[in-house]
Amino acid sequence: MTTSSLSRAALADFGTRHRPDFEAWLTSLVSIPSISVDPARAADVRRCATAAVDLLRTDPVHAESVTLIETAGHPLVHARLTNVADWPTVTLYNHLDVQPADGDDWLTDPFHLTREDDRYIGRGATDDKGPALTGLLGALAARELQVPVNVAFLWELEEEAGSEHFASALESAGDSLRTDAVVVSDTIWVTRGKPSTPAGLRGLQPFRLTLRTATSDLHSGLTGGVVRNPLAELMQVVAACVDGQTGRVLIPHFYDEVESLTLEEEDAFLGSGFSVETFKRDYQVASLRETDTLEVMRRLWGMPTFEVHGVVGGYTGPGVKTAIPPTAEVKLSCRLVPNMTCARTLERIRSFIAERFPDVEVHPEPGLEPFRGQSSGPLADAVLAAFRFGFDAPAVFTREGGSIGAVPAMQRILQASVVFLGLSLPEHHYHGPNEYFDWGQAEGGIAAFAHLLNSLSQSLRS
Amino acid sequence: MTTSSLSRAALADFGTRHRPDFEAWLTSLVSIPSISVDPARAADVRRCATAAVDLLRTDPVHAESVTLIETAGHPLVHARLTNVADWPTVTLYNHLDVQPADGDDWLTDPFHLTREDDRYIGRGATDDKGPALTGLLGALAARELQVPVNVAFLWELEEEAGSEHFASALESAGDSLRTDAVVVSDTIWVTRGKPSTPAGLRGLQPFRLTLRTATSDLHSGLTGGVVRNPLAELMQVVAACVDGQTGRVLIPHFYDEVESLTLEEEDAFLGSGFSVETFKRDYQVASLRETDTLEVMRRLWGMPTFEVHGVVGGYTGPGVKTAIPPTAEVKLSCRLVPNMTCARTLERIRSFIAERFPDVEVHPEPGLEPFRGQSSGPLADAVLAAFRFGFDAPAVFTREGGSIGAVPAMQRILQASVVFLGLSLPEHHYHGPNEYFDWGQAEGGIAAFAHLLNSLSQSLRS
Repeated sequence: MTTSSLSRAALADFGTRHRPDFEAWLTSLVSIPSISVDPARAADVRRCATAAVDLLRTDPVHAESVTLIETAGHPLVHARLTNVADWPTVTLYNHLDVQPADGDDWLTDPFHLTREDDRYIGRGATDDKGPALTGLLGALAARELQVPVNVAFLWELEEEAGSEHFASALESAGDSLRTDAVVVSDTIWVTRGKPSTPAGLRGLQPFRLTLRTATSDLHSGLTGGVVRNPLAELMQVVAACVDGQTGRVLIPHFYDEVESLTLEEEDAFLGSGFSVETFKRDYQVASLRETDTLEVMRRLWGMPTFEVHGVVGGYTGPGVKTAIPPTAEVKLSCRLVPNMTCARTLERIRSFIAERFPDVEVHPEPGLEPFRGQSSGPLADAVLAAFRFGFDAPAVFTREGGSIGAVPAMQRILQASVVFLGLSLPEHHYHGPNEYFDWGQAEGGIAAFAHLLNSLSQSLRS
Repeated sequence: MTTSSLSRAALADFGTRHRPDFEAWLTSLVSIPSISVDPARAADVRRCATAAVDLLRTDPVHAESVTLIETAGHPLVHARLTNVADWPTVTLYNHLDVQPADGDDWLTDPFHLTREDDRYIGRGATDDKGPALTGLLGALAARELQVPVNVAFLWELEEEAGSEHFASALESAGDSLRTDAVVVSDTIWVTRGKPSTPAGLRGLQPFRLTLRTATSDLHSGLTGGVVRNPLAELMQVVAACVDGQTGRVLIPHFYDEVESLTLEEEDAFLGSGFSVETFKRDYQVASLRETDTLEVMRRLWGMPTFEVHGVVGGYTGPGVKTAIPPTAEVKLSCRLVPNMTCARTLERIRSFIAERFPDVEVHPEPGLEPFRGQSSGPLADAVLAAFRFGFDAPAVFTREGGSIGAVPAMQRILQASVVFLGLSLPEHHYHGPNEYFDWGQAEGGIAAFAHLLNSLSQSLRS
């Protein structure tokens, strides 16, 4: 079997035959609230891992080996679908943990897969359970079509929590995870119908600020004016760090390592089909901090951020309870771009705050380094060809504003090239309420994965 | 019966005999979570009012008339214990609604009265159910001792929610609430053993700021840097309004109406027994914005404030969820001092914010005007004498940092002088967790109320 015999019609037929498998698997996985960031959900995260192990062991997959890898945090799932000695190996990376689904904006039960026409609605449908199952079916298609490539699956369950234990688990696993290349499917196109794939990822450094100024609620009449107010002080800290309206970070040297875009990068960005109007419509926002198209892309893909995500402390019920809280916490994060590091960014934040607000505590959460990928060479070409085959449209290299902590770790520890075959769309509500995946992206994705595995079976052998 | 026959021993005996009534009543009232700020508790607030009506109608009270007065909000309770035509009438004002009791810092069930030695622990014990029952027993003692004064009770159930409907209810009730003087028992001494009573109250203007920038959570990787962050913007608004560390309000003209203290006021303040160290110990705070004794008192009693009480919007669970929330709300309030008004203060806040942050919405909650009371004349003298009688210690006039919205309303609508006979102590955890009242304050309070009623029976007749 050679590339020439891989027909789009055969893969469409494969997709149609296996759509019931896809739907049954996705129903099962979405029903498990594998929220890795919530310690109370640890048992659900493990249940999701064992459900994936069962899925890989049984009909129609029957992987040659399936391993649940323990870590100091949530487990990993690793499987080898085939393991022929003289074939190259490609590992498909996805994650099966999900974001929380709190808030009142969900129109359906987030942990019950709801099908509406070709849409599959539920937490994790597009991030990243749907793409994981698409990759699995693409690999089964390649096996059925006798493509001479070994496919392995590496499914993480701690991605949304910052992949804290992923790198050390990879180091411990050693040679058992050996692979020649890694394909990551956890990214989002710029626009439907126009495949795009990142040549770089932003990193992420989440952290929390806390301040305690009393031991219990204080009466704002009896003590107000003299006692400290931890919410007011932390708001002042945040306002000193970032201009909330423009997003400009005010911490000295914060932008020192940020590189300007090359002209080639600017051209590629401008050719990606990115539209500010579409962006506003997809994310349902009426106003933005910036409206120039190239500048918007530069801010999304090429600039770091400083965001406030939540506040704990004080009264949150109806009306106003006028007590002064004894303690407050602000949840924040910075996205980082290539050439920045988590450690240096955190150090600048820490020293800026320590100097001006000495009793505010900075609590770092696990960080994800930024990643610079490849946009030329045989692997990059194989990715572009796979998208064209699967979706009958040309693909371009952009960057990804999001962060995938596993990516720099896999490149470093597995010593394998990493490429991206993402399938999510902006309108899929990634991380938001009413998240969904759709069959159009799954069907094209199965074909694209099969085509990519076929290309890699040749390029990795040569 | 004349003043000379009112012996402290007789009142001590009265207190001892009626302590079981006091405890049974307080147990019953504290068991009702009459949280007026929470719409879900409206039925409990009404249940508290009807429990009070039952209490006033039955043994040993048997008030001559008891009325549940409906308002557009929570009801009021009014009762006349006695109603002899040629006696003057003194109305005792208290409130029976309470603050919320959320948070994990309560060591006992806040809505079950727990007795520990002479302390009565529960939400509302000192604010203001315990003082209300103390005033009731003081009135029963005066009746038993045949003091020629009519006593009425006016118990509000909306004080903690800002007394929004109190003034209009008083206006509607008209002559049925007629009285010659009002005694308010809802204030706090500066220090145990040294009675103090306010010659002025701060006002209160609570308000909320809201900002919506999207329709649902947004992914901080995919959109961060370009989309607006409502938490970051509202923090910038707050930081523009107030210096969170010093408490200095930065809104132009905010302090224009604030009057300096007179030398007499400064002297009275300095003679009140106020101690910064005691203040810090009572409220369990390690650091303050200011440490000079007179300056601390000036900030507490003679200066307005701008406080942050809570934030709604974004993630509040464990760790950091890196979504950008679509909307945020900040809960705030200002305390006002005499000569300031709610309307003018609110207008200055509104115009300052509208100019700089045009899409931030300002939502006022019901405000309470500041109040300037009397510190000389027969009524003021009667109050000082009552404290001396009840607690065997001299009393001084200070000011109250807290706000009682009903006070300016009663003075204006009932056309009656208002004086204060407060019984709470700083260590009673007013508005905080583990709130309590103690029998020492109740016993002395019963005697002080009886003495004050006796004095007023004479001074109001003359």
